[in-house]
Amino acid sequence: MAITKSDYIGVKRQSSARTGKPVMIDELGSARPKTTAKKNKVQKSDYKSPKKDALKLISLGGLNEIGKNMTLYEYANDIFIVDCGMTFPTEEMPGVDIVIPDFTYAIQNKDRIKGIVITHGHEDHIGGLPYFLKNANIPVYGTKLTLGLIKIKLKEHGLLNSVKLKEVKPGDKVKLGCFGVEFIHVNHSIPDAVAIAVKTPVGTLVQTGDFKIDATPIDGDVIDLSRFAELGQEGVTALLMDSTNATRPGFTMSESKVGATFSQFFKQAAKKRIVVATFSSNIHRVQQIVDEAIKCKRKVCVSGRSMENVVNIAMELGYLSIPSGVLIPLDMIREYKDEQLVIITTGSQGEPMSALHRMAFNDHRQISVGSNDLIIISATPIPGNEKMVNTVVNELMKKGAQVIYERMYDVHVSGHACQEELKLMLSLTKPKYFIPVHGEQMHLRKNAELASELGLHKDRIVIGDIGKIIEISEKKVRLNGDVPAGFVMVDGLGVGEVGNIVLRERKRLSEDGVIVVAISVDRYSGYVVAGPELTSRGFIYEKENDRLLEDARNHVSHTLESLSFQTNKDLANAKNKIRDSLSRYIYQVTHKEPIVLPIILEV
Amino acid sequence: MAITKSDYIGVKRQSSARTGKPVMIDELGSARPKTTAKKNKVQKSDYKSPKKDALKLISLGGLNEIGKNMTLYEYANDIFIVDCGMTFPTEEMPGVDIVIPDFTYAIQNKDRIKGIVITHGHEDHIGGLPYFLKNANIPVYGTKLTLGLIKIKLKEHGLLNSVKLKEVKPGDKVKLGCFGVEFIHVNHSIPDAVAIAVKTPVGTLVQTGDFKIDATPIDGDVIDLSRFAELGQEGVTALLMDSTNATRPGFTMSESKVGATFSQFFKQAAKKRIVVATFSSNIHRVQQIVDEAIKCKRKVCVSGRSMENVVNIAMELGYLSIPSGVLIPLDMIREYKDEQLVIITTGSQGEPMSALHRMAFNDHRQISVGSNDLIIISATPIPGNEKMVNTVVNELMKKGAQVIYERMYDVHVSGHACQEELKLMLSLTKPKYFIPVHGEQMHLRKNAELASELGLHKDRIVIGDIGKIIEISEKKVRLNGDVPAGFVMVDGLGVGEVGNIVLRERKRLSEDGVIVVAISVDRYSGYVVAGPELTSRGFIYEKENDRLLEDARNHVSHTLESLSFQTNKDLANAKNKIRDSLSRYIYQVTHKEPIVLPIILEV
Repeated sequence: MAITKSDYIGVKRQSSARTGKPVMIDELGSARPKTTAKKNKVQKSDYKSPKKDALKLISLGGLNEIGKNMTLYEYANDIFIVDCGMTFPTEEMPGVDIVIPDFTYAIQNKDRIKGIVITHGHEDHIGGLPYFLKNANIPVYGTKLTLGLIKIKLKEHGLLNSVKLKEVKPGDKVKLGCFGVEFIHVNHSIPDAVAIAVKTPVGTLVQTGDFKIDATPIDGDVIDLSRFAELGQEGVTALLMDSTNATRPGFTMSESKVGATFSQFFKQAAKKRIVVATFSSNIHRVQQIVDEAIKCKRKVCVSGRSMENVVNIAMELGYLSIPSGVLIPLDMIREYKDEQLVIITTGSQGEPMSALHRMAFNDHRQISVGSNDLIIISATPIPGNEKMVNTVVNELMKKGAQVIYERMYDVHVSGHACQEELKLMLSLTKPKYFIPVHGEQMHLRKNAELASELGLHKDRIVIGDIGKIIEISEKKVRLNGDVPAGFVMVDGLGVGEVGNIVLRERKRLSEDGVIVVAISVDRYSGYVVAGPELTSRGFIYEKENDRLLEDARNHVSHTLESLSFQTNKDLANAKNKIRDSLSRYIYQVTHKEPIVLPIILEV
Repeated sequence: MAITKSDYIGVKRQSSARTGKPVMIDELGSARPKTTAKKNKVQKSDYKSPKKDALKLISLGGLNEIGKNMTLYEYANDIFIVDCGMTFPTEEMPGVDIVIPDFTYAIQNKDRIKGIVITHGHEDHIGGLPYFLKNANIPVYGTKLTLGLIKIKLKEHGLLNSVKLKEVKPGDKVKLGCFGVEFIHVNHSIPDAVAIAVKTPVGTLVQTGDFKIDATPIDGDVIDLSRFAELGQEGVTALLMDSTNATRPGFTMSESKVGATFSQFFKQAAKKRIVVATFSSNIHRVQQIVDEAIKCKRKVCVSGRSMENVVNIAMELGYLSIPSGVLIPLDMIREYKDEQLVIITTGSQGEPMSALHRMAFNDHRQISVGSNDLIIISATPIPGNEKMVNTVVNELMKKGAQVIYERMYDVHVSGHACQEELKLMLSLTKPKYFIPVHGEQMHLRKNAELASELGLHKDRIVIGDIGKIIEISEKKVRLNGDVPAGFVMVDGLGVGEVGNIVLRERKRLSEDGVIVVAISVDRYSGYVVAGPELTSRGFIYEKENDRLLEDARNHVSHTLESLSFQTNKDLANAKNKIRDSLSRYIYQVTHKEPIVLPIILEV
């Protein structure tokens, strides 16, 4: 099944040429003559829904945040969804595993949802899918690799057999209720990414998904600019465009640039072992590392669970080409000399459990880093991860390794369009209305400013928010009303069981710990028959602070003398008194505010 | 007392010209003729200590970390200390207020310590002082502003009257046992910063402190390059140099550059209120904001406790010049129009309690941000603070404010030397040995590489670590032995009471919370007479998860049936059994691992 790199060369626009005919046929399109672009325009009369309805765009994620992208298109009775992502918890959510959108509105309206369209296989676009599909079994449309990655997730959640997956290719069109969705090839840091053009009763909308413009991509398959241009000629009512890099001037460099840098470093490190850390989903990056390894007659091995998963699926589906004999299992590296090896690994963000982190902290079973290693971190830290990455770099350097991590070397390029590319997309599609998506306020704003600079009137640009309804008619665009939206925390096996109260408790526990005060009282007489016994965790080290806890115990004993324990009401009152009095005492002597937890057992 | 800016102009090298005669006289220097540089060289015969002793350099902080700088110079029986800083807790230290060096070695040897020399008034150089001085009352040497800032700290700790503070000026020399310490003016992001040249029995050492080379500093007082050159001519045995910016190529821009950018933005925002956030200690930055405000006929007010403190002390000591009538109290801003105001504020790092953060989250008593505000964040996020800064920027933008924060505008320059400046310092001082300081491994290494590139042999460069003894004789430099070193956490009123066990508990509490299981047993029969009662915090929200806790309670009841409670040994065993059994059960049903805390009260 493996497609070698040369298979891609020359295949430019019609990537559908790769594997045969479209999977689904656009019912709208087929009902109309397709000979000229002009006639391909949506005719309002095609639709039965009331003409005066407005199109509603509702984001449940991805506005005023990076991650958990999810957008609903709603017209009259029909809805379809674009993407269903997750995001990582912030520092304010300790213990939480992942964060997904609040699906309430979509689940309430699940009977009206015609399909879920996925633009590409990154976590911020597919990570929420299993959680949503458990509540609403709706068909999912995506390209081959995207579905391959989704399948891994569905399998983990035991959903593989119940969910309908519909494979599409760039150029394909599908009909979802009154919507006609066309897939358009774009460049991004994962193969098989698509934008969509959506024919609606109020005209054509274009949603770019994540994209960049790469004139020299690794698979030779340049973003389908001419299709965007055609759509622009036909008339685009609204453009929804990726804002991730909107604050960065210029153009994003081509992925090929990284290969040239690898080539140079591999040459310099002729006698060394080479370790390259990157995002597992960046299959073109992995391909470039493999190609360079082959040139240098080195074997390749892979470390890290997600890297192994993605490399396997990408090879199986033909997105990664590794000639036989090149890839060796990790257990075999002892049989090769340093200069015969390239290790591709996870951990480019310094993640604590990742393979590179384990190498840095002597915790990797097969790989022990030393002075004959060249380690390349082929990624830029995501904001918030800088410190983790620095820690890993420092530890690797202490072991004597040469570590290439600095931005000044071209060992990484972004997958998102910078300002000049964004302007180009605006110029090609010439939208009537502009809606920046995928970004924090600073990114959305800057993207909106770019559209302004190109002459679009302020009234035609809308910066939304999750849960806000953006209403589009042929005459205007506006915010009008809202639906429930927010974030739901997945914590262990629980989805949404952790709320603000629990998070506040966790925060306080993490800063000052807990002191438990236990007493037993006689149910009838109300006398204290055992305790008070004080136990703390996360507060101070008890063995070294006997005295403090003993003083605190005496303080509680003193408080107890004035209390009654003869009715339930008294018990609740007594607990409050103990809590208040001990908290005050502890603050006075330590300036700390642990959670004080009084427990009264009646015997 | 205020010195106006024009007072500085023309005052170049001899900043001592500013306020009269040196405070202390170099006893070494005065015993020798000073007419030629050559003769100023240290004569070994001046010293009574055994000639064969090596000089020991011991860092208790500042190597393999940014922050809590502290270096001991030790020769025979004499010791002196350079700087005594603090650092901020990492994410792994929740609840901890600040982190200071482990002073053990210095305190054990306090009778041998002749003085503490402070290079400048930043927290990473003075923040540990009060904690150290409580244990060892040793005289502190520093320049006027540095001592002014130290006094604020000593006052807070009730130490102002007991500590001996000795004011020095650039050019001054002090004798500390067998060491002669000379102060040399350098540029940095706080005025009155100095490097030191230390005459020792093994020759002259130069320690740069934090520095940059600024040809156009705000006070006109350029770093004393010619003194470094003279020392280089005389012979420098070892150079200890700031590594903070060693990974950055080129030159650090002049502080004046920022003023030009302010000027431009102030002009554009003619009708707006202007808010500028910066580090309070960057007094030259504050001066530039004030100067620009005066040019635009605006009043200035200051928000944030540390900004108020530093502005007051800087005005009092003559480092900040604000003509009367310009500075107005915050309460008065209602009486002025937006275009008549500039607000200088703390919060450039997005710190949760800072004034700018409070403005962003509608929590500032006097200032409410809106669309007529231009907000300039005149700082670069310190690694780890990027997300906090972004959050503040996003919130301010949501209020409609124009926010200037991007690196592409020159609204901030660093206070530390970049690669070309570091090379210049190496070239001027021509050290025999080189010891990079102040930095993580990546910075120390890069600084070492720069020295290599300039031709210094590898054997003459030492990358140390905290606690490692660097031994310097005239013939060689080497690592030889170590002393206790590490970090001590200040947590509320406790210093060092929090250790790894407590931190591990806090981490686990923050991620999974705590479940307390309480029972009462009859002391004689061993029967359970009350409970089990289960209470949780930070685990799940109890009210919505009654069922889970009820099931867990039943599980514990079941476990109890098999247990005996008749001896103390049984009790300990019972607690372990309850903990293990309940932990397993909870993990099974939730995949979470809360701390389980069994409490058994005997009645």
